[in-house]
Amino acid sequence: LTDRSVKRQPAPPRWDTVLASAAELFAANGFAATSVRQIARRARLSKPGLYYHIRGKEDLLARLCESSMAGILAGVRAAVAAARDPEAGLRAAIGAHLEYHWRHPHNLSIVFGQTPFLSPERRRRVVALEREYLDLVRGVIRDGQRRGAFRGVDATVAAFSLFALLNGFDAWYDPRGRIGPRALQRHLERLYLSGLTGGRRAP
Amino acid sequence: LTDRSVKRQPAPPRWDTVLASAAELFAANGFAATSVRQIARRARLSKPGLYYHIRGKEDLLARLCESSMAGILAGVRAAVAAARDPEAGLRAAIGAHLEYHWRHPHNLSIVFGQTPFLSPERRRRVVALEREYLDLVRGVIRDGQRRGAFRGVDATVAAFSLFALLNGFDAWYDPRGRIGPRALQRHLERLYLSGLTGGRRAP
Repeated sequence: LTDRSVKRQPAPPRWDTVLASAAELFAANGFAATSVRQIARRARLSKPGLYYHIRGKEDLLARLCESSMAGILAGVRAAVAAARDPEAGLRAAIGAHLEYHWRHPHNLSIVFGQTPFLSPERRRRVVALEREYLDLVRGVIRDGQRRGAFRGVDATVAAFSLFALLNGFDAWYDPRGRIGPRALQRHLERLYLSGLTGGRRAP
Repeated sequence: LTDRSVKRQPAPPRWDTVLASAAELFAANGFAATSVRQIARRARLSKPGLYYHIRGKEDLLARLCESSMAGILAGVRAAVAAARDPEAGLRAAIGAHLEYHWRHPHNLSIVFGQTPFLSPERRRRVVALEREYLDLVRGVIRDGQRRGAFRGVDATVAAFSLFALLNGFDAWYDPRGRIGPRALQRHLERLYLSGLTGGRRAP
C-alpha cells in the first residue's frame, strides 16, 4: 500500500556538480543566456529536482559566487597561516589562489563579471568575502612592511595589484601553451615579490 | 527661391563629443541598455543627425573601442620613443597609459568589457590594436632583457602583467581618496619596475 499523495522530498543535489555545471554554462554563454533546464541537464538532474533546492537561476549564481570566494579564501588563509614569514606567506597565497583557479577555471571570472546580476543582498555577501580576502592579503603585506621586508609600495595598492595579476592572466593565458602553469606561477611570484621587496630578500 | 527638395547634408558631428557621450552612457548603464537617442541627446545632436553619420549603436561602440585603443597606443608609442632606455621606456609607458585613462576614464573598461557586442570584423580591428600594444610593450621588455636590465620574468607574462596592473585598479580606485593619481602612478611604477629589475637599476 503506497500513499501517492505524500510527495517524496528529492534528495539534496550534489552541490559541487551543480555549481560546476552552472559555472561552465555561465562562462560559455553568459548568465542571461543560460537556463536552469540546461544546468539541470548538465548536472544530470531533472529541472523540478533542481528547482526544489534553489529559488531560481539568480540563487544558483549567488551560491556559485559565494562558494567560489569562500573556497579560495579558505585555501589562501590556510596557506598563509602555515608560512613562516610575510614573503613566504605571499608566495603561499599566490600558490593557493592559482591552485583554486586550476581546479575551478571558470569561477573567478564569473565572480568578477556576473555579480551585477545578483540582488543587492546576495551581492553584499560576495563583496564581504572579497573584503575578507583583501584584508587577509593586506595584513600580510603590512606585517612585511613592519618587519622591513617590503618597502616603498602602499599596502592597499600592493594588495589590489596582486589580485589584478592573479585574475588578469586568465584573459590571454593558455595552460597548454609554451608557459606551463608552474612556470606562470614562478614568473608571477618573481615579478610580484621582487616588486615588493625591491629585490632584497626578507631578513 | 529655395529648393526644399535638395536635402542639406548634416554637418559631421564632433566625434570626440559623440564618443565621450557614448562612453559615459555605456559605462553607466551598459551597452545593451543605452539607446542612440540617449547618446544623441547627451551630445546635443538630433537622433537623425547622429544616425546620418553612423550605421547604428554597434558602429558607435566599434568607433569608441578603436579610437580608445588607437589613442592610448599613440600616446604610449610616443612616450616610449622618447625614452633613453628600456626602464625609462616602461616608466614612460605607464605614465602615458594612465594619462590617457585620467582623460578618458570610461573608455578602457568599455574596450575590455563590451567587445562581445562587436561584430567579428570590428572586433578583429580592436584586437589588432591590442596586439600592437602588446608587441610594443613586449619589445621594450625584450630590449631590456638583452641589455641585462630585466631578468627572470618571461617577456609575455611581464607585458600582460603590466596591462593587468594598469587596468585592474579601476575596479577599486578612487582618485579623490587617500592616494592621489600621481601617488598611484609612483606605487605601480615601483612595484612593476622593481619586479622586472629585481631591484637593480638598469646600467
